[in-house]
Amino acid sequence: MKDKVIDKLVSIAGEDWVIQDLDKIEGYLYDETPEPASPKAVEEVVVVKPKDSEEISAVMELANEQGVPVIPRGAGTGLCGAAIPTEPAIILSLERLNDIKDLDEDNLMVTCEAGVPLESLFEAVDETDHLFFPPHPGDEGAQVGGLVVENAGGARAVKYGVMRNYVKGMEVVLPTGEEVQLGGKVLKNNTGYDLMHLLMGSEGTLGIITEVTLRLYPEAKETATLLVPFENRHDAMSAVPEVLKEGHVPLALEYVERKLIEESAEHLGKSWPAEEGEAFLILIITGKNEEEIFDKSETIVEVFTENGALEPLFAQRRKEQESILDIRSNIYTALEEETTDILDVTVPPAEVGNLMDEIEDLAEEYNTNIPVYGHAADGNVHPHIMNVNGEAPEYFEDLKDEIYETALDLGGVITGEHGIGETRIKNLPMALSEEERVLMGKIKEVFDPNGVLNPGKAV
Amino acid sequence: MKDKVIDKLVSIAGEDWVIQDLDKIEGYLYDETPEPASPKAVEEVVVVKPKDSEEISAVMELANEQGVPVIPRGAGTGLCGAAIPTEPAIILSLERLNDIKDLDEDNLMVTCEAGVPLESLFEAVDETDHLFFPPHPGDEGAQVGGLVVENAGGARAVKYGVMRNYVKGMEVVLPTGEEVQLGGKVLKNNTGYDLMHLLMGSEGTLGIITEVTLRLYPEAKETATLLVPFENRHDAMSAVPEVLKEGHVPLALEYVERKLIEESAEHLGKSWPAEEGEAFLILIITGKNEEEIFDKSETIVEVFTENGALEPLFAQRRKEQESILDIRSNIYTALEEETTDILDVTVPPAEVGNLMDEIEDLAEEYNTNIPVYGHAADGNVHPHIMNVNGEAPEYFEDLKDEIYETALDLGGVITGEHGIGETRIKNLPMALSEEERVLMGKIKEVFDPNGVLNPGKAV
Repeated sequence: MKDKVIDKLVSIAGEDWVIQDLDKIEGYLYDETPEPASPKAVEEVVVVKPKDSEEISAVMELANEQGVPVIPRGAGTGLCGAAIPTEPAIILSLERLNDIKDLDEDNLMVTCEAGVPLESLFEAVDETDHLFFPPHPGDEGAQVGGLVVENAGGARAVKYGVMRNYVKGMEVVLPTGEEVQLGGKVLKNNTGYDLMHLLMGSEGTLGIITEVTLRLYPEAKETATLLVPFENRHDAMSAVPEVLKEGHVPLALEYVERKLIEESAEHLGKSWPAEEGEAFLILIITGKNEEEIFDKSETIVEVFTENGALEPLFAQRRKEQESILDIRSNIYTALEEETTDILDVTVPPAEVGNLMDEIEDLAEEYNTNIPVYGHAADGNVHPHIMNVNGEAPEYFEDLKDEIYETALDLGGVITGEHGIGETRIKNLPMALSEEERVLMGKIKEVFDPNGVLNPGKAV
Repeated sequence: MKDKVIDKLVSIAGEDWVIQDLDKIEGYLYDETPEPASPKAVEEVVVVKPKDSEEISAVMELANEQGVPVIPRGAGTGLCGAAIPTEPAIILSLERLNDIKDLDEDNLMVTCEAGVPLESLFEAVDETDHLFFPPHPGDEGAQVGGLVVENAGGARAVKYGVMRNYVKGMEVVLPTGEEVQLGGKVLKNNTGYDLMHLLMGSEGTLGIITEVTLRLYPEAKETATLLVPFENRHDAMSAVPEVLKEGHVPLALEYVERKLIEESAEHLGKSWPAEEGEAFLILIITGKNEEEIFDKSETIVEVFTENGALEPLFAQRRKEQESILDIRSNIYTALEEETTDILDVTVPPAEVGNLMDEIEDLAEEYNTNIPVYGHAADGNVHPHIMNVNGEAPEYFEDLKDEIYETALDLGGVITGEHGIGETRIKNLPMALSEEERVLMGKIKEVFDPNGVLNPGKAV
């Protein structure tokens, strides 16, 4: 990095907040993408940690002046390489913007800076004792700004939707350095084109979000976790739409299979509580009181039983619920070391069973094992392509393309929640028409005429 | 209109579908904006009624070639003049694209063409006997495409949100004539920038939506209407956040005052059922069965009673419920003839009471009456500026600006659901920063380089 750039960064943020030591930079070079599928980071980077929008604006002005790329970075919990520097760049970490500025109980909204970790947000909202922020996209270390620009999903998106549904306002530093304030504490807003929705899912390429206003919900005082075993995947998958049609929408509805979930349990030194069944649905049921939880669970269990379920387990004690969800959450951790890539295909919800059957056929064809699990009610599953002898198999790209084509043929998309970032850029032509890609490219130019903000990502 | 354009339109859509007779065109020149505030339509227009995307593409190619504006038109139920021709133009009516193509009960989605009237959609969904399309933006004659490009709201947006929340896929003819297909029957999609969300609320300026895929919900088998009287507005408004925090989110939560609602009742030849109270909240409660409705209503009434409500009326018979909601829905009809303009200001929900107090002060200052009512839980109300001696008062623009400034000062926006169209274009500079307006203008240029699709509207 040019001395001129470093000097200017020091004058903007102060010497303490401009990092060049390779050992201190290391943590800013990767995200959670499995190593074999991850884009390779370059080390010619400098990390700057501005304290506010004003300093961020100044960094963007410098970037435009000097033609140096800037990569905005949250906690690095992403799964598509969107925050990985693949060319010499300024890495702009939002970690110092970590203030929860306003928890507004009357408007059921919270305003916080982009660098606030999800776990801090949860804690603050919990303290109200009656409000609730539903989304749970896996890693609680994730920062709010990252969750918004990636339009994160996770298991708890069945009832209230993905991040996009919660964001009502934001403050943004544009790639050219100007600051804009979009939306606010309003539930309805039709003032011109919705730039805010365009920013969501733009993966740090159209602006740097510095602050967001999020909608909260009244807390469901009680939760229960239902673990519903089935003889096989087909039975489990056929039962899902029946329950959804029935009307009690659960907070989460996950699908896992025995082999995989037992591996995860073992990895944690726990045991999987269901003795019978090969395929499992895990539901989180929420309600205002015990009675409501019991009623809802009873109706749901009835529909499942009519549709081939074996004896369900009903967990109400906090510890018991946490244990089941913990085993589910750690599937990725248990598989991670042997994983080449984790995919994120999404199809119309009633097609998930077909998708998984076709993926099983592909596994057979390629003579491999493709673990699949995920958010069944959303049609969003995560097939893992596994290493062979500790590294990416030769057929990795071919198999991935075939899984993507399978999802697309079923009316789906190549990524439901993880995003395009850099890892899926090469797959965009199969996923989007040329017209769409041209429009996206031109929108990028409108926001970032010099192409300095996170170039080469998202579109 | 040039003969060349007419001839080409006839060759595209056929003679029967190209209309030039002034008496047949009349119905395509206006929307529901009150006459004194409405932009004035020009009569040098031709109406074309293409039958499909292909013909629409051909019309757009012609428009670009000849530099003639095209105004896409649904049922003309809008309230911002977005579909009114204020310069010579081709009016492109979507009325012949009225096919409900696929009601997919397993995926809880419906795919229909843009010209399908809302009432036909309701009927089709009703026939399933277990699915439900929640939004109800007033006029059931409105066409689906119009509802989407205007991101319509209405009373039933409290529980499930505005139109934006339902749209999962769309087919669009771009201003330059290309067709694109966005999204699909998927609940999660993070494939590049979200062009679909950009189209929503773009008021027919970025593309002509020809088909949409909408999410449906399991039907709430039972509904009840709660009519809750209060001594005064302040008591009613203070009670709203208390109920929302409590947890049972109603489908709708409307606010009306006695004088206004009695005028509406009289207009319909009905009587308003509440004998006591000056200010009223109307709630629609939904549930799976009678017991659930009773339970929810009981909890809600309890909270209201603790917060100053008088004796509530509980309506469960269909006819009784319809009568209350009908009187509410007809406030606009009752006021319409004497209305200069209907505004659509939206503030943080807990500020609605303050907004209404300040509007009352303005009414006093201007020595007029400003009826206000609306969607209390969404912070979205409709103040009416009234005629003086049958026409717009001198102070119309000043008073409107003051109401807008009041909403903006309270952290709100100038339009929550009705949109910018043409009537609010001149107010954009007070509502958006210059940076935002520049970005929106450039996005318009990206989609529509020749500026032929609904120019002068929305941004």
